[in-house]
Amino acid sequence: MVATDNFQKKSEQARFNLAAYLKERQKLCDTALDQAIPVVYPEKIYEAMRYSLLAGGKRVRPILCLATSEMIGGTLEMAMPTACAVEMIHTMSLIHDDLPAMDNDDYRRGKLTNHKVYGEDIAILAGDGLLALAFEFVATQTPKNVPTERSLQVIARLGKALGAAGLVGGQVVDLESEGKSDISLETLNFIHNHKTAALLEACVVCGGIIAGASPEDIQKLTRYSQNIGLAFQIIDDILDITATQEKLGKTAGKDLKAEKVTYPSLWGIEESRAKAQKLVEEACLELAFYGDKAVPLQAIAHFIINRDH
Amino acid sequence: MVATDNFQKKSEQARFNLAAYLKERQKLCDTALDQAIPVVYPEKIYEAMRYSLLAGGKRVRPILCLATSEMIGGTLEMAMPTACAVEMIHTMSLIHDDLPAMDNDDYRRGKLTNHKVYGEDIAILAGDGLLALAFEFVATQTPKNVPTERSLQVIARLGKALGAAGLVGGQVVDLESEGKSDISLETLNFIHNHKTAALLEACVVCGGIIAGASPEDIQKLTRYSQNIGLAFQIIDDILDITATQEKLGKTAGKDLKAEKVTYPSLWGIEESRAKAQKLVEEACLELAFYGDKAVPLQAIAHFIINRDH
Repeated sequence: MVATDNFQKKSEQARFNLAAYLKERQKLCDTALDQAIPVVYPEKIYEAMRYSLLAGGKRVRPILCLATSEMIGGTLEMAMPTACAVEMIHTMSLIHDDLPAMDNDDYRRGKLTNHKVYGEDIAILAGDGLLALAFEFVATQTPKNVPTERSLQVIARLGKALGAAGLVGGQVVDLESEGKSDISLETLNFIHNHKTAALLEACVVCGGIIAGASPEDIQKLTRYSQNIGLAFQIIDDILDITATQEKLGKTAGKDLKAEKVTYPSLWGIEESRAKAQKLVEEACLELAFYGDKAVPLQAIAHFIINRDH
Repeated sequence: MVATDNFQKKSEQARFNLAAYLKERQKLCDTALDQAIPVVYPEKIYEAMRYSLLAGGKRVRPILCLATSEMIGGTLEMAMPTACAVEMIHTMSLIHDDLPAMDNDDYRRGKLTNHKVYGEDIAILAGDGLLALAFEFVATQTPKNVPTERSLQVIARLGKALGAAGLVGGQVVDLESEGKSDISLETLNFIHNHKTAALLEACVVCGGIIAGASPEDIQKLTRYSQNIGLAFQIIDDILDITATQEKLGKTAGKDLKAEKVTYPSLWGIEESRAKAQKLVEEACLELAFYGDKAVPLQAIAHFIINRDH
């Protein structure tokens, strides 16, 4: 019986076409994001917001949000406003991080960064506008069949993931660490937990909350997302060393140049890769409880460590 | 009877001690804002957020929010998280507007601007952190006796007042208008409606929503707040010409230097002052329905045009 179950599970996973799944979900997200920001007067700010938001990201974060909602028993429609909000927050953090006063980057997702096209003033405001819209969007666009208490919980989680206890705090420590070669593993973990993992966790957990996740569900989702968050960052650090700028779509070798301490610089590339692999396996185990419904989230976890850009 | 009513009303207004009222409310707001941001690791970002948030503002916006909640029948406790949120949003917009890429200001509220003390990178992040906290704060700190639907409506209104359809959009048009001497009254109105009036309106209306305002209440509150918003801006423009830097706490004569079109430059100082006076009188009339309960909001409206800084 157990053997049969395992066999069925493996064949379910084998049948699952992740590439087609991601492509379809990406298209759904692109359409929703496109519709979220019509261009009206003053056009420049809406265009600047759209320039970065619709710059062809992989939509990993909103797809995680949607997939979690479905695994917990919710619908795509219920979770789509939250999925759009996490992509708006992610995009806003990229626009601000790329500014001359921060990481001073000229390219992002293979295109000129926002301030290179629209100027620093508009880039700062475009980030602010996306951030405001993210919260407004969850509050106004979540379907009426979702209890308001859930939307409020999502807003609280997104605010925390973004603020000084999340993305913003991680970026502060990252900026402080630049040029220092004696950064501890503890500090490095703090940076990544806050800059990367906090928002990934919010994507997954908020997708669950919108669908009515129980406290037990949220515990499992939290552990899954923390594991893939760290794996994601380790692979990002490895790619910064091994990938070409063309594949990465942003300036490659930036961490080395900035003398940033990274996981591969602490552990070497091979051990880093092994740790990422282990984190992903543990993440997948967390979701075993949900059976076949967990297949998309498990496949996405594996995708994170196998990507080449 | 009408004469007696008028007499009683006038004496009620006469008895009302606005200076004491504002001082007491300001203290309540200062305490709540101080407690809203404890300093933890990484300290620098929390300190930067606190530096501007606790820089001794007059707290006009949160006080408007609290006063409206009470007029509609709510309590201070119900509205305090929303009151804190509007002050966080206001402060965030000041920090970002003062940046070198924007208005490039060195002084604000009589102190060095945020980026002058903490650097541009931290100032951008401090603004982002305050913005995220504003929404998180409403979602998590509003007392449980307030229906979640109300908090959600407040978040939607705050997001709109702050985003491209509000503050951000107003700042974009303001930046575009700088150095141009042929700005139309329509454009000037757009800037002020979005940069100043939108958030003032949100303060008043959200204070009402938290207290359970009816659609009719919200109509009255909207008209009151739009009138005082415009009056506030007209007086700001006049003060930029007539006040000294010491009183203003920020660089005086900035608009003239930047060749900005302002209400006094279009209408002259005397006509501008008369228009502000008329707007305030109309604002007060809107609230006549609430009788004595409206006295604080009416007194605040008059205060706006009589202030000298």
